[in-house]
Amino acid sequence: MLTIAIPKGSLLKESIKVLQEVGLDFSAFLEPGFRQLQIEDPTGRAKALLVRNGDVSVYVEYGQAHLGIVGYDVLREQGANVAHLVDLKYGGCRMSVAVQNSSPYKSPLDLPMHGRVASKFVNCAREYFKELDLPVEVVYLGGSVELGPITGMSEAIVDLVATGNTLRENGLVEIETLFYTTARLIANPLLYRLNSDGVADYVDRIREVVAVS
Amino acid sequence: MLTIAIPKGSLLKESIKVLQEVGLDFSAFLEPGFRQLQIEDPTGRAKALLVRNGDVSVYVEYGQAHLGIVGYDVLREQGANVAHLVDLKYGGCRMSVAVQNSSPYKSPLDLPMHGRVASKFVNCAREYFKELDLPVEVVYLGGSVELGPITGMSEAIVDLVATGNTLRENGLVEIETLFYTTARLIANPLLYRLNSDGVADYVDRIREVVAVS
Repeated sequence: MLTIAIPKGSLLKESIKVLQEVGLDFSAFLEPGFRQLQIEDPTGRAKALLVRNGDVSVYVEYGQAHLGIVGYDVLREQGANVAHLVDLKYGGCRMSVAVQNSSPYKSPLDLPMHGRVASKFVNCAREYFKELDLPVEVVYLGGSVELGPITGMSEAIVDLVATGNTLRENGLVEIETLFYTTARLIANPLLYRLNSDGVADYVDRIREVVAVS
Repeated sequence: MLTIAIPKGSLLKESIKVLQEVGLDFSAFLEPGFRQLQIEDPTGRAKALLVRNGDVSVYVEYGQAHLGIVGYDVLREQGANVAHLVDLKYGGCRMSVAVQNSSPYKSPLDLPMHGRVASKFVNCAREYFKELDLPVEVVYLGGSVELGPITGMSEAIVDLVATGNTLRENGLVEIETLFYTTARLIANPLLYRLNSDGVADYVDRIREVVAVS
């Protein structure tokens, strides 16, 4: 049966909406108190797994899901072996470098050599500073990355920014954007190539729905 | 000023209690809707950072916090360069291998060679199966690890178990315990050795409080 890995959190609602538009209803995941992590569409044509953002590409890469929906930021950080198929257009944010308001750094190149940058997206951060040819130590933090500069552990952070409110509340300011990100439809390359369980047809329909929206 | 990294989540309440018993009050973190991530004790003698479980040892290792409280499971998984000082006795759980009820595996050695094991604790899992001399592929999942065997992606999981309710709800059963874990008091080795900001005295008092409790 066609299986789709859907991410918990900020992309969930829009992901369920786009699947509804191609006739697959997984809205049960939105019911308060709903605890199942795996459900079938009422028509019995497809199954959905509700997983963490970071786990979507694992299920797709190992072929436990034909399709997945996940942010481009996560795909870029993980570099998973999956087919990137459709830009779904929602969930827009940017990956940015930010520093304290009070700091003298107006651009990433102002940062001191061998300084520290805190991030959950250590691969994105390392790649960016390598391209700049600025040697920095990238420190992994799993959450509340703003605390890096506030506590003095790091000179800067690399983090996802949507509205910028969290940065402002913590006295931080963006000085550069690494890239923009939106939700993406991904597929297991082999299952997609074989059109297993009609996966390629669903992809075409999702592509059409996104094109006219 | 003495700085302590305290973990969000299940260890928070007890961690604040043990610090209260040595005269440091960070109970503001327990107030509903409280958003600050860094507060001072009302007496102005110490500061606390509220961070993710997995980030505690980062702040301690880099010296932004003298002390930290974190589960032994996380310490063992990360292998951070911090001093393990006191077993705080609360937050007890076990790291276990679990499989589906319906599976034929009664012990980890029954698992098929080159099978898959899903875990958030990939280093603990790899170390365990290496000692068993059983070659398995360990797959990282950041959450809902139970879905590994349910979807057929993995034959087993290695995960933290407190009550066992999550396993039972998902039709899984424990077949082995890797180790038991509790909350630990850790310190930055250098700051502890120098007794910076009186850190060693606080450690002694916490040790006494735990010994009589």
